[in-house]
Amino acid sequence: MVLDPPLAHPLIGRLTVIGVGLIGSSILRAARARGLAGTLVAFDGSEAVRARAEALDIADLVAATPAQAVADADIVILCVPVGAMGAVAQAIAPHVKAGAIISDVGSVKGAVVSALRAHLPANVHIVPGHPVAGTEYSGPDAGFATLFKNRWSILTPPEGTDPAAVATLSGLWTAMGANVETMTPEHHDLVLAITSHVPHLIAYNIVGTAADLEAVTQSEVIKYSAGGFRDFTRIAASDPTMWRDVFLNNREAVIEVLGRFTEDLIALQRAIRWAEGDKLFELFTRTRAIRRSIIEIGQETAAPDFGRSHD
Amino acid sequence: MVLDPPLAHPLIGRLTVIGVGLIGSSILRAARARGLAGTLVAFDGSEAVRARAEALDIADLVAATPAQAVADADIVILCVPVGAMGAVAQAIAPHVKAGAIISDVGSVKGAVVSALRAHLPANVHIVPGHPVAGTEYSGPDAGFATLFKNRWSILTPPEGTDPAAVATLSGLWTAMGANVETMTPEHHDLVLAITSHVPHLIAYNIVGTAADLEAVTQSEVIKYSAGGFRDFTRIAASDPTMWRDVFLNNREAVIEVLGRFTEDLIALQRAIRWAEGDKLFELFTRTRAIRRSIIEIGQETAAPDFGRSHD
Ligand SMILES: NC(=O)c1ccc[n+]([C@@H]2O[C@H](COP(=O)([O-])OP(=O)(O)OC[C@H]3O[C@@H](n4cnc5c(N)ncnc54)[C@H](OP(=O)(O)O)[C@@H]3O)[C@@H](O)[C@H]2O)c1
Ligand SMILES: NC(=O)c1ccc[n+]([C@@H]2O[C@H](COP(=O)([O-])OP(=O)(O)OC[C@H]3O[C@@H](n4cnc5c(N)ncnc54)[C@H](OP(=O)(O)O)[C@@H]3O)[C@@H](O)[C@H]2O)c1
Repeated sequence: MVLDPPLAHPLIGRLTVIGVGLIGSSILRAARARGLAGTLVAFDGSEAVRARAEALDIADLVAATPAQAVADADIVILCVPVGAMGAVAQAIAPHVKAGAIISDVGSVKGAVVSALRAHLPANVHIVPGHPVAGTEYSGPDAGFATLFKNRWSILTPPEGTDPAAVATLSGLWTAMGANVETMTPEHHDLVLAITSHVPHLIAYNIVGTAADLEAVTQSEVIKYSAGGFRDFTRIAASDPTMWRDVFLNNREAVIEVLGRFTEDLIALQRAIRWAEGDKLFELFTRTRAIRRSIIEIGQETAAPDFGRSHD
Repeated sequence: MVLDPPLAHPLIGRLTVIGVGLIGSSILRAARARGLAGTLVAFDGSEAVRARAEALDIADLVAATPAQAVADADIVILCVPVGAMGAVAQAIAPHVKAGAIISDVGSVKGAVVSALRAHLPANVHIVPGHPVAGTEYSGPDAGFATLFKNRWSILTPPEGTDPAAVATLSGLWTAMGANVETMTPEHHDLVLAITSHVPHLIAYNIVGTAADLEAVTQSEVIKYSAGGFRDFTRIAASDPTMWRDVFLNNREAVIEVLGRFTEDLIALQRAIRWAEGDKLFELFTRTRAIRRSIIEIGQETAAPDFGRSHD
């Protein structure tokens, strides 16, 4: 299964991506592969990334400034860390075209909606988004055109947003292979706290705990990591800036879900201490069914060990 | 990279595997592929598994009873859940050959050493072991010959064990592609608590917490699982009997490591509450280095997303 062939006519005139990292460069690659925009424009705050974007020939134009980047753009998608969204919105605000759609891909939505609204003019359509797709790598070389294929992209348009603008953005994501769902920013932030943010925090934490144990050397932790630990290190290798920003900007939902997690974990610890085998067995059986469902709806591979090579 | 070609002469005469699941059937397959034993014998407590072992032609003889299975065996490897080791040792004890090597693959070593010693006669060599390799699947169909390739197999011979017996078993694992290390059962149980047991417990726990949240539906958890959650469900889909037995038999080390994990997690939660971005950033940077080391020593793939298919 690959992306569908290019469209006969582009969906939109000029598409600008700001922040050419894993997500931004994947959007550019998918849009190019499917011919979704008349002109593809890229901009990044880092000169090195702009040079790399040029070298990769990832857009029709790699702009030199935010102003040049958004001039005349029909859709602008901000693909920078959540904490940088406000500054980027401020930088582009004087230059965006009236009627343009301004979107983003930030992993937190409530805080980003506030940041965009605070800076952008009233004559643009703000349609925040979040593709639930990624890898542990970042930067312009990490992206690929099929990243969004069969993944969900969540849009969180504020009440009163023009339905036509939502439909256009939704069409863009669909054309990149994604399924689209809309919900409120608040609900998004709670759902993602459990399906993404707290899992990342736990992964970072167990890797940190392992590194700090005195009785077990770090080289032992590394050597015997195939017992399960290494799965966690993938997630705990994700970009530190991105994830710091996620936790700082989704504090309430993360702390709420974390409270539940800890409560459950302490109950489990107690069951181990008192040798309550049936309680353990019951939980361990229940959790299997959830993975089965994830595989059934095509959000996970059924291949053993994620399909890791065993040769 | 595949297994090396078969040996010209088998390393041992008669090799018996008791418990033809993921690990047992992988040993049989690897031993067959490399010609490691003159005769391969299999036994399982389940009639269905014995029939399946016959159908798969996984051994030269699928024994009908424990007595028949171990008669004349030079090496016997117990590949049953940790909680069943004692019963199996008891069942084979009257029938093992003097001088035979009795080993196992249990994920906990202290408790298994005690169980084996309690039942086996003094005229056999007890050399407990644990291959740090596996997948989330179980049963005779789940095994494969390359499972142990480039993984570590830990032996925990009690003090005073005949070095020749340890060397023979070590040679067997090496011939199946594994690297061999020896340590005390106590140290093994602590190392594995951090590299395997607690990670599994945390994975089971987060999946349970997610399933129980009222504000987020289970279908949302499943739909948006590609944000990180699905990684945890792989581990949380492992065999409930096996894992119940692991936690019941490695209580002390698991509870000790869990205490450290929770302490660290609460400190992290506090850093989020007080918006201490630098603390988060520092941890998230430190953890990356550990994954890099795991990849460097060949215990993990460098492919993004474990090499999951993105097409
Ligand atoms: N990674 C994922 O799995 C994933 C999944 C879904 C959504 N997201 C979201 O997508 C966004 C981007 O993540 P990513 O993984 O693509 O990150 P990334 O690979 O690190 O790329 C981000 C890019 O934005 C640039 N940038 C930072 N601040 C900027 C600014 N003020 N103006 C212009 N460019 C700036 C960065 O340049 P420098 O290198 O100079 O910092 C970098 O090139 C984040 O909001 C994240 O929450 C990520
Ligand atoms: N899975 C892993 O990743 C992994 C990794 C390293 C070590 N280990 C260890 O390896 C051992 C086996 O695990 P596995 O994953 O191979 O399990 P598995 O696939 O479930 O296989 C275990 C087999 O043992 C049989 N069995 C249970 N009790 C028995 C008894 N009293 N007598 C004879 N056969 C009996 C089971 O039959 P029934 O189906 O009738 O119960 C089953 O066929 C465990 O001690 C585990 O801790 C596992």
